[in-house]
Amino acid sequence: MYLDSGAKAMKKQSIGVGLIGLGTIAGQVAKVLIEKSDALAEHVGCPLVLRKVKVLPQDLTRPQAKELDSKLFTTDTDEFFATPEIDIVVEAIGGENPAREYLNRALSSGKHVVTSNKEVIAKHGAEFLSLAQLNGVGLHYEAAVGGGIPLIGPFQRDLLANEISGIYAIINGTTNFILTRMARDGMDFPSALSRAQELGYAEANPRDDIEGIDATYKLAILSSLAFHSRVRPDDIYREGISRLSSRDFQYASELGFAIKLLAIAKQSDDSIEVRVHPVFIPEDSLLAKVEGVYNAILVEGDLVGKVLFFGEGAGPLATSSAVVANIVAAAKDVVVGVGGGAYWKAETGKQVKPMAEIETRYYLRLNVADKPGVLAQISKVLGDHQISISSFIQKLTDSAAQTAEIVIMTRPAQEKAMQQALDELASLQVVKEISNFIRVEA
Amino acid sequence: MYLDSGAKAMKKQSIGVGLIGLGTIAGQVAKVLIEKSDALAEHVGCPLVLRKVKVLPQDLTRPQAKELDSKLFTTDTDEFFATPEIDIVVEAIGGENPAREYLNRALSSGKHVVTSNKEVIAKHGAEFLSLAQLNGVGLHYEAAVGGGIPLIGPFQRDLLANEISGIYAIINGTTNFILTRMARDGMDFPSALSRAQELGYAEANPRDDIEGIDATYKLAILSSLAFHSRVRPDDIYREGISRLSSRDFQYASELGFAIKLLAIAKQSDDSIEVRVHPVFIPEDSLLAKVEGVYNAILVEGDLVGKVLFFGEGAGPLATSSAVVANIVAAAKDVVVGVGGGAYWKAETGKQVKPMAEIETRYYLRLNVADKPGVLAQISKVLGDHQISISSFIQKLTDSAAQTAEIVIMTRPAQEKAMQQALDELASLQVVKEISNFIRVEA
Repeated sequence: MYLDSGAKAMKKQSIGVGLIGLGTIAGQVAKVLIEKSDALAEHVGCPLVLRKVKVLPQDLTRPQAKELDSKLFTTDTDEFFATPEIDIVVEAIGGENPAREYLNRALSSGKHVVTSNKEVIAKHGAEFLSLAQLNGVGLHYEAAVGGGIPLIGPFQRDLLANEISGIYAIINGTTNFILTRMARDGMDFPSALSRAQELGYAEANPRDDIEGIDATYKLAILSSLAFHSRVRPDDIYREGISRLSSRDFQYASELGFAIKLLAIAKQSDDSIEVRVHPVFIPEDSLLAKVEGVYNAILVEGDLVGKVLFFGEGAGPLATSSAVVANIVAAAKDVVVGVGGGAYWKAETGKQVKPMAEIETRYYLRLNVADKPGVLAQISKVLGDHQISISSFIQKLTDSAAQTAEIVIMTRPAQEKAMQQALDELASLQVVKEISNFIRVEA
Repeated sequence: MYLDSGAKAMKKQSIGVGLIGLGTIAGQVAKVLIEKSDALAEHVGCPLVLRKVKVLPQDLTRPQAKELDSKLFTTDTDEFFATPEIDIVVEAIGGENPAREYLNRALSSGKHVVTSNKEVIAKHGAEFLSLAQLNGVGLHYEAAVGGGIPLIGPFQRDLLANEISGIYAIINGTTNFILTRMARDGMDFPSALSRAQELGYAEANPRDDIEGIDATYKLAILSSLAFHSRVRPDDIYREGISRLSSRDFQYASELGFAIKLLAIAKQSDDSIEVRVHPVFIPEDSLLAKVEGVYNAILVEGDLVGKVLFFGEGAGPLATSSAVVANIVAAAKDVVVGVGGGAYWKAETGKQVKPMAEIETRYYLRLNVADKPGVLAQISKVLGDHQISISSFIQKLTDSAAQTAEIVIMTRPAQEKAMQQALDELASLQVVKEISNFIRVEA
């Protein structure tokens, strides 16, 4: 195959790029392709030329539309895909549909694809990769996870000799910004969310971010790649950050922990563990130091040990860094006449472990009756479920209500046992409220 | 070219690897090639087979010699290079010579090369890359900088759309271990060095590490790659860590700083700044949190913003992660029949800025006469050289000797001016000693 396409490629005077979308990311990608055309041509060996931009009518009023030659725009999908000079289709509209149809169409017609779309890759990546392989083209999605931070490339190439045992990632900048403000400034969740919205870090409808949905897309991609498995977003246990209170941050700090929304993937001999939820992590760990909208991804491999990648996880500039690098990689493949290279590896067939079976330590915050014997009752319930207490601290007492707030840290226990214990604790007369429980990663 | 070699490659049943050296890294690489042969074959498309190991007679008594089939060993360089089944030569002996000759010989005979040798790449990388390009083969050196941390790959591919403005790197684990012990445990330099030697983190002759020589090799490689320039180790201003005292760590901490040995490279419109020396960095910066033998490399690009790579910068396991990934990359090129891909780009011709012209803030620690008017004399000297003081603190006083220790932090000043001021300060009667001066990166 590569002999033919190689021979064909030798005649190429330029590589054609077709862009789908004209949002901030697409606009920035177009800008880089134009402003850095000389440097990029030097990397590729011939110029990269923007041939067509598939837009929606409303895109034409955007500021970035004024930066481009209006002859490039088309609202007609068929016209876009019928443009023979397009070698590489860059999809930057996001979301599952119609991106899925566009990617299928591009790959089926033998065009290399670059996308920054985490949702469509997380949900349909395996389908696209089969199609890419079948058609001898590449599927590039570096920008789908961690913005400009190199992650997909390192997993596909630099870390490939490793058996990856764990991924611990702060991969949603919006929630990390909110958690940072709650930790640093003592803000409550609604105020921190409002601040994030004012600054443009959170959307008007922030659900995908604050409920951890965005993070599950990214974790599905990373864990599928790292574990040679097909991890779907729906396989991932998920909790958002909205039930965290400033009280939790205060106690976490007193206990020597930070609270982060982590995307966690672990691999054991026979199963995979994948989950996104708030966790206590030691305050002197590197991940605990990752503040604001930054992302950081810690990877553990059998050879490399711990490696961590840190940077801006979003934003048009950082994302364009990854998209344009992918375009150059695809263009080099077009020039040499080879296919995409790195496809999803044969799957190991490992199953995702049910959440009930995971084991971790827990932080519990309870509101209880302020009278003797309460601890005995609580520790009996925990003990009945084989849960040991590693520390117990009585916090605020409310003498009028005759209640006290207590904080319990447990030793490692199984999630199922903890959930049963929480049910029983909730039914104790002396327990007024289970105010929160947060898992701990040490 | 790729058509011919592609046609040849199609007949290949396996890819042959020849290893030069049998130290701990070479031994670990051989082990991975054997133990992970199935997984690696799946990546490459056919098996990777170790064909020959070039050893010295004394290597044969090493433990790793017992792990390999003794028929693989040869002490005869000519026999090694005459082995036709070797497609990829892996050099793991380190040092400038005879590695230089071996790499030239391998590349000239059309073999792809993988090396973990920072010194030979830093000194002769450009020569090897020309030879590789001429012979249509690849030169891979990911393990030369940062052990298993992906760096060369990200610069060559993932970050290529960026104009890199700065690199700030902790790239020597030995010195970072020593500085961590000095900062955390209040150890003095000789004790911390001894401890590093006991633990095997520092060599019996630690000069290359503690004088910053090792770091200059790595910075020469990174900055050449990032700035499309030829930065030689000798171009890099260098100071080691042996003149740091526990007193400096104490004052740094009081002022909100950590002390690290940083490799710094900056690019401006018309020149490059490259230097390796101890610096004050803000204690809440991520680099300040990098402890022990870990490495971390912060990169600033116009698109990507700040990205940081962290991990184990040395050790056989981590290094083998990078070497084996490079072997797989080279093997894929052999299979597809293409050359090495990423060569040093055309050079920008930017000159390295003389150290005298750099501008930074300074920390000064002086032992002075404990009497009125001393500050006036000192600040006059600094003022005469256009150096402003941002803070001044009188520390310990020795009433018997009638001396005091003072610490001065300056605003940004030119190195040349500071050196002249230091000379003049040293000649003042009231200045007993210039105990230390350390540059500040904010």
